[in-house]
Amino acid sequence: MSLSGSYDDQNIFAKILRGEAPCVKIFEDDAVIAFMDIFPQSPGHCLVVPKEPARNLLEMTPDASAAAIQRVQNLARAVETALEPDGIVVTQFNGGPAGQTVFHIHFHIIPRWEDVPLGRHGGGQADMDELKAQAGKIAAALD
Amino acid sequence: MSLSGSYDDQNIFAKILRGEAPCVKIFEDDAVIAFMDIFPQSPGHCLVVPKEPARNLLEMTPDASAAAIQRVQNLARAVETALEPDGIVVTQFNGGPAGQTVFHIHFHIIPRWEDVPLGRHGGGQADMDELKAQAGKIAAALD
Repeated sequence: MSLSGSYDDQNIFAKILRGEAPCVKIFEDDAVIAFMDIFPQSPGHCLVVPKEPARNLLEMTPDASAAAIQRVQNLARAVETALEPDGIVVTQFNGGPAGQTVFHIHFHIIPRWEDVPLGRHGGGQADMDELKAQAGKIAAALD
Repeated sequence: MSLSGSYDDQNIFAKILRGEAPCVKIFEDDAVIAFMDIFPQSPGHCLVVPKEPARNLLEMTPDASAAAIQRVQNLARAVETALEPDGIVVTQFNGGPAGQTVFHIHFHIIPRWEDVPLGRHGGGQADMDELKAQAGKIAAALD
């Protein structure tokens, strides 16, 4: 089973959580950190990363998952206000065959626009100045 | 904006919640109902439908979203135990351009297997006996 395994604290999100790797941060509190995906599938694609060291949703405690989805809600609302997409996909991958590439639980928030197909995740790294501008707009729209 | 709009209580999930339309039920409590997707993208594709009458995640109350994600966790664990997939996608669409077709908040739980591509959602209706067998196995694996 690809869903089981031990948590590896050298994954990139663990490093970001410890401040050992950079990110384009939108928001941080006691439960999560939220930042821009540097390989966005659409403009404004961002991630909510719970601080609990779990590989996936199945391993999370109920309190941590509750806090996480509430941050996802708040961030999705801020994305709507800031970027005015036509829709927003929230997705969360468990296990490599499901599309998970970093084995620390995270939620994707992916804005969608009419008639604009999604890019391939990992297709190309975004322009850092663009990401910072998007992060600033989203952060400004947070409650 | 496709994300705003008033809640239409004639949507199919509202009818299922009121017992006016059938479903292949896995689980129900005060917060959600969970049942098999009749147009599955993979075997075992099921849905968690919160009882709160919200169009999407952005409109939900924090208490209802917390309860919903905890049911998603429990159901995903049961899917893992019952069907032994290699991965599980959890996804939630907000707005038509994001892929939402029923405008009552719901979460998809989609098992994935190595080297098996996803089917197109709505590509074909599943065999009801197969769905009932899957629902029974998943329900039996619930905590």
